[in-house]
Order: sequence, then C-alpha cells, then structure tokens
Amino acid sequence: MNVRVAVNGYGVIGKRVADAVRDMPDMDLVGVADIATDWHVRTAAGLGIPVFAATEEARAAMGDAGVPVAGSLADLLSQVDVVVDTTPKKVAATNLELYRDAGVKAVLQGGESHATTGHSFVAQANYATAVGRDATRVVSCNTTGTVRVLGALQDAGLLARARGVLIRRATDPVESHQGGIMNTVVPEGSIPSHQGPDARTVRPELDVVTMAAKASHTQTHSHFWTLQLTRPASRGELLEALRAAPRIAFVRMADGVTALNTTVELMRDLGRPRGDMWEVAVWEDVLTVEGDEAYLTYQVDNEAIATPETIDAIRALAGTVTDGATSIAMTDEILGMRREFLPAPASAPMD
Amino acid sequence: MNVRVAVNGYGVIGKRVADAVRDMPDMDLVGVADIATDWHVRTAAGLGIPVFAATEEARAAMGDAGVPVAGSLADLLSQVDVVVDTTPKKVAATNLELYRDAGVKAVLQGGESHATTGHSFVAQANYATAVGRDATRVVSCNTTGTVRVLGALQDAGLLARARGVLIRRATDPVESHQGGIMNTVVPEGSIPSHQGPDARTVRPELDVVTMAAKASHTQTHSHFWTLQLTRPASRGELLEALRAAPRIAFVRMADGVTALNTTVELMRDLGRPRGDMWEVAVWEDVLTVEGDEAYLTYQVDNEAIATPETIDAIRALAGTVTDGATSIAMTDEILGMRREFLPAPASAPMD
Amino acid sequence: MNVRVAVNGYGVIGKRVADAVRDMPDMDLVGVADIATDWHVRTAAGLGIPVFAATEEARAAMGDAGVPVAGSLADLLSQVDVVVDTTPKKVAATNLELYRDAGVKAVLQGGESHATTGHSFVAQANYATAVGRDATRVVSCNTTGTVRVLGALQDAGLLARARGVLIRRATDPVESHQGGIMNTVVPEGSIPSHQGPDARTVRPELDVVTMAAKASHTQTHSHFWTLQLTRPASRGELLEALRAAPRIAFVRMADGVTALNTTVELMRDLGRPRGDMWEVAVWEDVLTVEGDEAYLTYQVDNEAIATPETIDAIRALAGTVTDGATSIAMTDEILGMRREFLPAPASAPMD
Amino acid sequence: MNVRVAVNGYGVIGKRVADAVRDMPDMDLVGVADIATDWHVRTAAGLGIPVFAATEEARAAMGDAGVPVAGSLADLLSQVDVVVDTTPKKVAATNLELYRDAGVKAVLQGGESHATTGHSFVAQANYATAVGRDATRVVSCNTTGTVRVLGALQDAGLLARARGVLIRRATDPVESHQGGIMNTVVPEGSIPSHQGPDARTVRPELDVVTMAAKASHTQTHSHFWTLQLTRPASRGELLEALRAAPRIAFVRMADGVTALNTTVELMRDLGRPRGDMWEVAVWEDVLTVEGDEAYLTYQVDNEAIATPETIDAIRALAGTVTDGATSIAMTDEILGMRREFLPAPASAPMD
Repeated sequence: MNVRVAVNGYGVIGKRVADAVRDMPDMDLVGVADIATDWHVRTAAGLGIPVFAATEEARAAMGDAGVPVAGSLADLLSQVDVVVDTTPKKVAATNLELYRDAGVKAVLQGGESHATTGHSFVAQANYATAVGRDATRVVSCNTTGTVRVLGALQDAGLLARARGVLIRRATDPVESHQGGIMNTVVPEGSIPSHQGPDARTVRPELDVVTMAAKASHTQTHSHFWTLQLTRPASRGELLEALRAAPRIAFVRMADGVTALNTTVELMRDLGRPRGDMWEVAVWEDVLTVEGDEAYLTYQVDNEAIATPETIDAIRALAGTVTDGATSIAMTDEILGMRREFLPAPASAPMD
Repeated sequence: MNVRVAVNGYGVIGKRVADAVRDMPDMDLVGVADIATDWHVRTAAGLGIPVFAATEEARAAMGDAGVPVAGSLADLLSQVDVVVDTTPKKVAATNLELYRDAGVKAVLQGGESHATTGHSFVAQANYATAVGRDATRVVSCNTTGTVRVLGALQDAGLLARARGVLIRRATDPVESHQGGIMNTVVPEGSIPSHQGPDARTVRPELDVVTMAAKASHTQTHSHFWTLQLTRPASRGELLEALRAAPRIAFVRMADGVTALNTTVELMRDLGRPRGDMWEVAVWEDVLTVEGDEAYLTYQVDNEAIATPETIDAIRALAGTVTDGATSIAMTDEILGMRREFLPAPASAPMD
Repeated sequence: MNVRVAVNGYGVIGKRVADAVRDMPDMDLVGVADIATDWHVRTAAGLGIPVFAATEEARAAMGDAGVPVAGSLADLLSQVDVVVDTTPKKVAATNLELYRDAGVKAVLQGGESHATTGHSFVAQANYATAVGRDATRVVSCNTTGTVRVLGALQDAGLLARARGVLIRRATDPVESHQGGIMNTVVPEGSIPSHQGPDARTVRPELDVVTMAAKASHTQTHSHFWTLQLTRPASRGELLEALRAAPRIAFVRMADGVTALNTTVELMRDLGRPRGDMWEVAVWEDVLTVEGDEAYLTYQVDNEAIATPETIDAIRALAGTVTDGATSIAMTDEILGMRREFLPAPASAPMD
Repeated sequence: MNVRVAVNGYGVIGKRVADAVRDMPDMDLVGVADIATDWHVRTAAGLGIPVFAATEEARAAMGDAGVPVAGSLADLLSQVDVVVDTTPKKVAATNLELYRDAGVKAVLQGGESHATTGHSFVAQANYATAVGRDATRVVSCNTTGTVRVLGALQDAGLLARARGVLIRRATDPVESHQGGIMNTVVPEGSIPSHQGPDARTVRPELDVVTMAAKASHTQTHSHFWTLQLTRPASRGELLEALRAAPRIAFVRMADGVTALNTTVELMRDLGRPRGDMWEVAVWEDVLTVEGDEAYLTYQVDNEAIATPETIDAIRALAGTVTDGATSIAMTDEILGMRREFLPAPASAPMD
C-alpha cells in the first residue's frame, strides 16, 4: 500500500515536494494545505491537487477568493501517514504537536532547529537512524550540499578539516520583487555561520567551520572550501571519492559551464521541472590538490536540493523501505538524477 | 507527409524551435547545425538530436571535442523542406543564398532586416501572405508582442495611435555572466526605437512610436503604452478586443502576479518547458481607459514568444496548411497555450 | 540675521539638507534630530552637528550608545525659525502639530500628502505663494523633475499634454542590503501613478498622466515622455524653452553619457558632495520632435534633486527672500549648480 | 623642489591619482594623457588639468571633439620626473620603454606583471627597496588589501598560513552599462587565483592561497580569510596587530555597518572625494579566533585603495622621501585617512 502524504505549506519547497511525491509510484499525495489565496494555491488547484485550508481564517478567505477548498488541515491529516511541513521558519515547531496528536509522522525542513525533532536527515548519511521515527528534519540546502560532499571525502578517509565560505543567493526568484538585496554583499555577522555546526547534527565527526554571505543574485548558492586532508592525496583520489557517493554531479569550466547561470540554463535545457538541480554540482576541473590540502567549489540549487532527501525521509519515517541505498536509488531513478549532465566526449579528460 | 525541418543555430531561440518542431505531429526535426562545441550542442546530442557542423572548421572542432557529428550543413539541407535560421544577427542574410541554392525554404528571425526576405511574419496578422513563399522573417520578440496586442485593438476599430516605452531585459540568462548591465538603465540613443517601425513591416497601417531602454534584469521585457483610441470606449470593449485575438493571456495584480518575476515563476509552476511563456501577458487589472485614451502594460518573454510564430511560419512556407487560423490552433493546442494561467475564481471580476 | 534651521530626520534627505543649510551664508543649522543610534547619527556628531533626540526613548538609547545628545526635539524647536521634516513617510503629518505648537515653520517632504500643509512647492513654479506661510511640502523627486521640465515647456506655450513612463530606482543605496528588488521590474498596480496628479498640486493646469515601475537598480530615476505640443515646433524651440528654465542641465549620448551610471560617475568626477546631481539631466541629443509630438527622456537623482528646493522653501517660509528668482540664484550659485556639466567643445552641435 | 608628475591614462585609477597628486604639497601634476575624447577627458579639462594626447591619432580626434590639447605624450614626458601609467592592462609594458628613453621614472599598476618592472610595491611592506628605482608596480587592489592585513599579522608573529576567498565586484560603476554580469556568480577557473601568488611578490614569505569569484555587484571587493596562527592567540592580540599597521580601519556590524553598501554610503557621508575608501575596512566584531585559527573578513574599495600607495611610490622613485613611514604619514594626513570612521562611543566595546 502506498504511503499517503500531505504537504503543509505550498511554497518554494512545498510545491516541489508535492510534485515529487506525485511522481513516486509508492506514494500518494492526498493534498496540500496553505493559508494563502493567491496564484500559488490556485495553481495547485489547476494542477488537480486538492487544496486544504491550514486555518479557519484561510478557509474563509479561500472561499472568498474562489479557491476550491477540500477541507481543513485536520481533515487532511486524518487521511495521511506522513506530513511534510514546509511552512515558514518556526511555524513547523508549533505544528509538530498537532501532527503528533493526529498520529501523523512529520518531515520538517531545515529552517527548524535540530532540537525540534531530535533528528536531522541527509539520506546518504543517516537514513537508517530515521527508519520508523515519528519525525525528522531534512536539513537546509546548504547543509545538505555540505554533508553530501564533505561526507563523501570523509567516508574515503581523506578529510581532516574543512573551512568553507558560502556565498548565498539573496532571496528566491518568487520573492525577488521584495526583500532582496541590490549591488552589495551582506556578510553574516558572526563566525561560524550556522551551516557548519548544522552539518554536525547529521555527521557529528565533521571538523567544519563556515563563513557565509549573501550576494546580489537570486539563483543558487556556491561554496568555496579549503580542505585539510588526512594525508597528501591526488586529484584522482578525491574525484573517485566524490564519484562513489550519490547525488553529486560534475560540471566543467572546459565545457563552458563557467558560472551559476550556465548550470541553471543547462537544467532548463535538460527539461528538468522548474529547472531544478537536485544534485550538488562540483566543478570537476576546478578541484585542486596541493600536498595535503585541497580546494573545491560547487553549486547548490537551494530550491531543489532537498527534494530527493524529503522523499527519502518520507519512506524512512513510514518504514516502507528500510535500506537507505534502496530508497535513494528509487528516488534518483524516478526523478532522473544524473552523475554527468552531458554525454561523455569521445575521450575522457585525464585526472 | 511531414514537413522536414532543419534548425541552423542551436542557441536561445534555436533550441526552443527545435523542441517545438519535435512536438508537432506534422513536422520532423532532421537535425540542428551549429559551430559551437560546448555544452549547448552536447546537450542537443544528449537529447538525441542529430547535430550537423555548420562549417568545415566547426566539423573538425566538434570531432576534437567528442561531439558526434551527423554531417555538414549541406548534408542537412539536402534532407529538409524548411530551414529555420537562428544564427546570430546578420549571419542569416549570408546564409539565405545558401538555402536558396539548396532549394530549401527559410524562416529567418527578427534580428535580420525586413529587406532580407521582403516578408515579415506574425501569424495572426499575415499568415496568408507567407503561404508558399521561399522565405520569411519572424519578427523580434518585442515586435511580435506589439503586433499581437496593438493589432487586436486595431482589428476592433479602437486604435488610432500608440506611443510606447519598452523596458527591455539587458541580456539573456545564458549570457548573463558576460555582457550584462549592472545597477543602471541604458536608454536607446535615438527615438523612435526600431520596434515601432518594425511593427509596420507586418501591419503597415499602425501609427506607432516607441522609446526603448535596457534595465538591469535578465528575464522578459515589459511594455508601457499610451493609446489614443478612435473614440471614447470602455475597459470592457478593450478587453473584449484582446480576448478576441489569439496568443494574449491575462494576468492580474489582484492574484498576486505583481512583477515580471512572478509571471516567470508561474510559468515554471505550470510545468512549461524551460519556463517558457509563449503568450503576451497583459495585466488585465492595470489596463485603464480615460475617455478616448487607454493605458496598457504587458510582459513579453523574449526567449519564447516567437516560438509558436516560427512553427506557423514553417507551415506557411511549406504550404501544408494554408489557413492561418488552422495553423495557429494546431500550434497552440500542442504547445498548451492558454488565455488564462489560473483556474477561474468562483465569481469573475467585473469590468 | 540668519534663518535658524532644524532638520528632523537624519536620513537620505535629511543629511543632504543639513549639509546644504550649513553651506548657505544666510542660514544656521542649529541641529538635527533623530531616533536612531547607529552610524548615521554618529557620523553627524563626527561632522560637528549637534544631535537632538526626537523622542524620550531615543534619548536614552543614544546615551547608551555613546552618542552625545544635545537635547530633546522640544529643545531644538525652541531655538529655530524653520524645521525641515525628513522623517519617514506619514510621520511628518503627526509632527506638524508639534511644530505649530512650538511656533516653528515647517518644510515637509514629498512623502506627505498635499493636504497635510495645503501647499506644495517647486521653487521655479510657485515660490511666491509660499512666502510667509507656516508650512509647505517640497514635492517628491519625481514630481520635482516633472514640474521643472514640463513646466518649462508649458511656460513657453508649447505643451498641450504629457504622457510619461517613470522607471524608478528600487531602493536607495543605503537601504540596498534589505528591501530591494532583484532581476525584475515591478509595475505600479494602478494608472495613473501618483506622480502625475501630484504635479498638478504645484501646476494645476498641467495635463499629465504617468505610469510607473520600479527597475532593478538603486541609483536615480529615468522618465520617458510622449508630449503633445500645442503646435508643430522645432527641436530648437524645445531646447530653448528648457534652457530658459533653471535647474535643468543637458547631457549627451554623443559625449559618452549613455546610461544612468555614466551621469552618476560624472557627478563624482565633478567633486559633487555624495555625488549629488541637483539638476534634472535631460538627454539633449535624444530629444525628438515629429510635427506636433515630442519625445523626451531625462534622469532624476532622487536623493538630491529636492535639496535646492528645500533650501528655497526655507527662505520662502522665513520670508527673508521674497523673490523666487533671487533665492534660486543664491542657492544655485552656492551649491555650484550647472547648465552644462562639461566644458563646451570648440564648436557647438547644431540643433 | 616639487616632484613633477604625469598621469598616463585618465580612467578609474588615473583620475584618482591625478587628484591626489594635486592635493600633495610636494608634487605638481603637469598633466594627464589619454586617447579618449569623451566626457572623461573633457571633465579633466573642466577641472583645469592640462590634457595631452597619448597618440597622434588621439591628438587629431581630440581636436575634432573640441578637447583643448596641451601637447603630445612626448611633450608631457619632457616636463616630468615621474609618470604614473594607468593605461589598460598590458599597455604599460609597452610604454615602459618609452618612459625609459625619456629618462622618466615610472609607476605601473597591478594589471601588469611583476616581471615588467622587477619590483612590486606596497608602501608599508617595502618602501625602502623602491627608493631611487627607475620603476615599480603598485600591486592590484586585492593584493594591496591582502598585503596590508596579512602583513600586519605576520609582522606580529601571529600568521602561519592564510587561505582566502575573494568575492570581487564584477565591473566598475563607470563601465556597468556594458560588460557586467547579472544574477550570477562567476568563479575563477583555476586555484589558486593570481592574488595569492601576487602578494608574495611583495612579501615572499607569506603562505597564502586564494580562490576568487565575481559576484553581481559593482562596488568593492570582500575577502573572507581562514588563518592558521603560529599559536593560540586572543582576539585582542590580533586586533592589536592590525591597529599597529597603517591604512587599516575598523568597521562594526554593531554600528549598523552590515554590508558593502553601508560602508560605501559612510564614505559618501564623510565627504570623501568620489566616496573613496583608501583604507582596508576590517569588520572588527566579526573577527573570530578559535584556538590557533582565526576568521577574518574585510572590504576593499578597488577603485581607491591603491591611490595612497601610488603617491608613496612616486616619492620613493623620486627619492625625495627615503623613509617609508614618513611618506605614509604625509600621504595619510593630507588625504584624511582614518583608523576609525566614527567618533568613539562613550565606552569602547570589550575584546
């Protein structure tokens, strides 16, 4: 029997999760809940997704706005096994009580603190520990990317210490007519920024410190890492370690993929829904190793990277798939995730 | 028998045309030609599109880069009925001779001058005059939008004179890591800008003057029009005239569609390939009429708006469909073009 | 005896007014009042300007932050003849009562409605009617630019009707790390935008309609006008009319002044304080006349354009100079305003 | 007798150097040379600076454009002791021969390679070695900032190793209507980026590696450093080391100086010419030390930071001041350089 899923919060994350759930053969999207009445939820209705009102006020407002309402949040919860909460930061913590009372398992997002659920999730790192739990938190886009890449190097016994600078997009495209930054860089006021410690909620043994800043663009983050290796290593060893881990793809300056916007365009050309890139895109030919130090840069699609993690988290909580690698493989095949975005050239470049 | 089509130039326009041709049941995409060897053409190869080398130098370079080459441009031309030339500005004029020698009909793009082919094309305005011709020019994105909207009002006998300000995107997203503008507005140095006169190559009776400027964004143009009507009219009359014409869709501030980025996001949510908006998006609730003057603003997706026009132009040149309305209806249905992007609310707003 | 002046609100406008007052030989800046405790007011203190606390809470907070406080707003008002209120939108309306009770004349800014003071001010248009009043409102940057340019053409008997598109900067540089817009254009949701009607508070006979939008830049507005003239005229006649009015300067594409950022740089090169451009910069070689229609574009430095108007308004209210032309000439000479920013070339271009 | 100075190239750097030379009591600006005929050189003429034609073609073009020409580059060189070459990248290398033939000492800029002159200059690092030389190269803005800050820490015996990420402005404001980047980040394609090795041309003993990227803004660079210290140290020790070196100023998030644009505005408020910040602005309250690692971020005004270095380089080459500290003190006092931009609060924050 399929896992019955609700999505509470039909925004940047919620709509992607809703679409991915609909794509999965072992899941049913029962509906989405929201409080808005504007084009977002009306689009959901247009796609045939039942829309539930997250509050009584929202129910009235949706009615006034002509949005067909399938019921209340309580109605929705009564019909599902797992709810994915993608409400704005800090709202989910309050909702969690509601979900527990309804006997519904809950996947929260990275905006919440680890303490809220006591478990933070990145599929390739700790799927097993989430199996059968009542709730988990899929970590933020930046932390997900960090755990995937640093985790791969640590699993290969190569990583001693990681010091990173995270250049974040300022706001999402859908919000970019308000609340953005212009012609500036805004550094975070304290070091370490929260992403480093946050990675340790999933992989406590990581020695990682991050600085962060917002730059004047709306699409995707980029991370710049200085890595202390456990020993002198070759570029080939690092690349092999990255290739051994899931959900990491390579891009190359030599192919003309030279900036964040190029990768974004490439995703559009590949026919990805909403142009989403679920993989971490590591610049293969920028990776540099000097003795026991390595320098690495990659791109994180903040809107999309947590989508496959959320799908896996649903399965883990539901307990329908107990093996992480199996769930990851299912998710990745159905979404169409890739290790290389371009067909291989006739002769592969040497490492 | 299907029309056999080639696309020469696999860039922002060419790749969209190639995909649309592949979607049409009455057309076959034989292949695309280009001179580049980077990720763009490798993506085409990855999608299973035969790639031809537009020049001998390109053929060698593609070979070196590992791009599988299906043949030369001459090879490609020998297998098609119609070629769509989407090479950079001014190259097509030279290519035209080549196409004529090969006995292949040609659709050029708006970067070329009207004189190159002697015929300029917007499907709803002058499909009939293109039927059976050797060549036509699909006009630019700005001109296409202008002809659709002003033409609709003129067809309804309402438009005496149009004075417009065109705020253009500075560069396309794929080129935005070079050649863009930052934190400024760049007005065109002469008035009228070329778009006004260009609209008259399709509808010579239009009384239209345009000023233009580039602003600091990469996605879509917006036009602001002051219209002198032939007589005092109501908002309802103007809206009715716009609804009577194809390829115009309405958006509304009241739905939260309040800026260019919102519409772009909406297209992504609707699952449009590459987020393309083929329609002109007129802000229905911003349209204002005072006596015999009207004020109108709409959004033009410069990357996508000419795609359906190009499809129609192929049919017109090939002569397989002689009626414009029939071709337009076919194109629009297969692409999934719409008059409204959102499901109607319970009660429609009053005009 | 010099006019004693206070500035309430030390922000983008207030700090410019404070500096200009300090430059004027017939005025004394007694102090500025504010509620902030951050670098803005500490900069004022560093420049030797007495800082007063606008509220009791502010006084305590300033003390805590180590800002030397010269007294309360009441203390400041007790020492001045005129207060310039540059507090955020809508605050001034409340303050006005306070000023009246203190017997202090008040200059408000364009964010307030005309009704607040019953008088709206642009020096060259209506200085005389402000002489001796208790209060006036210096109109907004956009409206000031509009009144200067359209007023000049109307004074010459040339202007019948003006239809404009105002492309506004999104936010000021000082606020651009928050609250900006990114990679988009945000059209105002209703037509006419407020600037057109607002110009009529100063020149009621203007037939003017405006559409407005915010674009993705932080510096200066640009206006694009379609003008219906009273009769066919020459470019020379229009230029002569503009030259006859004060506070309009010409820039030229032919000189390489081709975009908003170029003019901004030019002001920096001229040594202007903060790079301020107090003049409206009309693109002389873009101005186009066809029969009885004209097309015109100019640039408005939204941070600076109202500074000279405010200085004149102070004199008008104080009644120390009763002739507008005299006050304008004083202000302009001391600030160093210009009609041309570049030395004339050997031979002037023909009109 | 004053040092007679020429500036060849009146662009972003040249015009600043020209102004600074005019401010120095021990220098005379004989003139500037350029090849342009647009508003830039006409502004110089308007400021009373003699303009020379850098080439014969330029001389003719300047004449046609009405720019008063004082003579040829050879004429200019015949009247000076030192020329500052601020021509575009790679042009200076060719010019150097010309300068040597004319017996004129030359200061080149950071766009040239170290090999061109065999000496690279940062005043506080190696003034003495430049005294009496024929030529030196003032290093680039990024390298200047790096040498000032890392050098200060190294002089204090604190710095073992520095790994930095340099987020650069994409283009200068004056060029931002062309050639910019939009809504993206462009990482440099190879690591280390050139700035790290370049710092070693001035301080060979620095262990420094840099990654770099361009972000979507036009004003100032920001650097993010991970520092390996020689031993565990306190924040206070690092701050003391920075305070002991010249041309480093502190800014603080706690004062509301929270982003690049805030500092830019602060410079405008301080009345700096063109808003220039000659100091490196270190965020004092972001500096973090954990054991023997430190994390540091600062802002570099790429247009202005090399101006004082260039002034010192002129003196060093001319040999009129043989002690670096003396020259630095003269330059800094006349320009008005500062260690703190705000008056100190009543009680200083604790370290």
